[in-house]
Amino acid sequence: MIDVVLLGTGNIATYLFEAFSTSNKIRILQVYNHSQASLTPFKEKVSTTIFLEKLKKADLYILAVKDDVIPKMAAALSNLNGLVVHTSGAVSLEALKQCQHSGVFYPLQTFSKAIPAHHRDIPFCLETERQEDLELLKTIVHKIGGKAYQVTSGQRKKLHLAAVFVCNFVNHLYAIGEEICLINEIPFEILQPLILETAQNLSHASPRKLQTGPAKRNDLATIQTHLKSISNKEHKEIYQLLTHAIQTDYGKKL
Amino acid sequence: MIDVVLLGTGNIATYLFEAFSTSNKIRILQVYNHSQASLTPFKEKVSTTIFLEKLKKADLYILAVKDDVIPKMAAALSNLNGLVVHTSGAVSLEALKQCQHSGVFYPLQTFSKAIPAHHRDIPFCLETERQEDLELLKTIVHKIGGKAYQVTSGQRKKLHLAAVFVCNFVNHLYAIGEEICLINEIPFEILQPLILETAQNLSHASPRKLQTGPAKRNDLATIQTHLKSISNKEHKEIYQLLTHAIQTDYGKKL
Repeated sequence: MIDVVLLGTGNIATYLFEAFSTSNKIRILQVYNHSQASLTPFKEKVSTTIFLEKLKKADLYILAVKDDVIPKMAAALSNLNGLVVHTSGAVSLEALKQCQHSGVFYPLQTFSKAIPAHHRDIPFCLETERQEDLELLKTIVHKIGGKAYQVTSGQRKKLHLAAVFVCNFVNHLYAIGEEICLINEIPFEILQPLILETAQNLSHASPRKLQTGPAKRNDLATIQTHLKSISNKEHKEIYQLLTHAIQTDYGKKL
Repeated sequence: MIDVVLLGTGNIATYLFEAFSTSNKIRILQVYNHSQASLTPFKEKVSTTIFLEKLKKADLYILAVKDDVIPKMAAALSNLNGLVVHTSGAVSLEALKQCQHSGVFYPLQTFSKAIPAHHRDIPFCLETERQEDLELLKTIVHKIGGKAYQVTSGQRKKLHLAAVFVCNFVNHLYAIGEEICLINEIPFEILQPLILETAQNLSHASPRKLQTGPAKRNDLATIQTHLKSISNKEHKEIYQLLTHAIQTDYGKKL
């Protein structure tokens, strides 16, 4: 049995709480948050506390809290014997240096409380100082159906940057697509099969090989028609920059 | 039985050929292309021709050819009694005005010969002058498991523009993500569950509600760290522009 204390009550903590509850090899002993109100959804299911000094003895303490809080909290956990890990893409392992045993347990997925946590196959980026701690984290990942990757702090920061491009920025392009549909009284659902296919195709081939569209084939007439039809200044700038980037990449400059 | 002549041998024509072959209510009478060589993959399965004057009598002629060829070919098909449609997102119905009966049959999906045509649920944007022609196209869409939408030429052009944002530009962001991974010796597959989830979440909520990341939460420290770590000039410009666009949209300017 692996005993876990969860620190935090946000999207990642909520997901981990649910995922761990599905395994009979992982026991959540306690959930911590500095605010009593945030603990409400957990109170009926598990022991909770608002005091860092009252954390129970566990094998693993998971800091699922905001990036800037991590070093402060780590300092307060320096007397614990168990492994202390954080779940951030952007914070280095170094931030936990005051803990006796430290690691990173970063689930590379987008979590929203509004959407059911049906996720499996979530990639976890793991980093520890000791090999035995890495084995513990790997075991937990496998128990909840995730996929474990050993990733250094340097690599993790790059991965976090890449995730901004492929998730946050991509979602903004979806929002622009939706806006164009709304203004023109077209149901956004028409675009959704295309969006899904574009994402799913990555399991067949590299995005470089999958690039299509007017910029890739240097179809200047269509590009000009599109630019004329965009009234939103920011959308136009994004169209121009991404078109230029694709043309440059595929050897056809404007 | 609906008799069809297919003009063109590219990705869309190949997809339609395969999709129609699965229905016993649609019969492909003939495939046309101006080049004999391009017809090779079809020759064993169906009658082919390189002469527009030798097209068979059919209910429907589908022009699955490059946008700029459509008006020229339409002029050569002015004596046909059947319905002549094109499959382009960017060309208006007007381009077929020399045909006796004309329409648009635009499948809003990304097609690649390299990837199996397992597609169903493909949205088809339909436009015709006569109601009976619209019914014919709707029947065909349903027979091949697609979804029919009646869309005007004006709406279709906007939809084509939106598709550039949510498919072509999105794919370029995937390519940037892959490049960051390659340079840092990280397997790109780590990002793929996140990419899929970001696309699939659109069936639960609007992208505006799903926006996450440093730009959305105005996390200036992470944004600065990211900008410092990007050496590629074009990637940096894209990061800046999209970050600024998200900040503007969510009311937090730089």
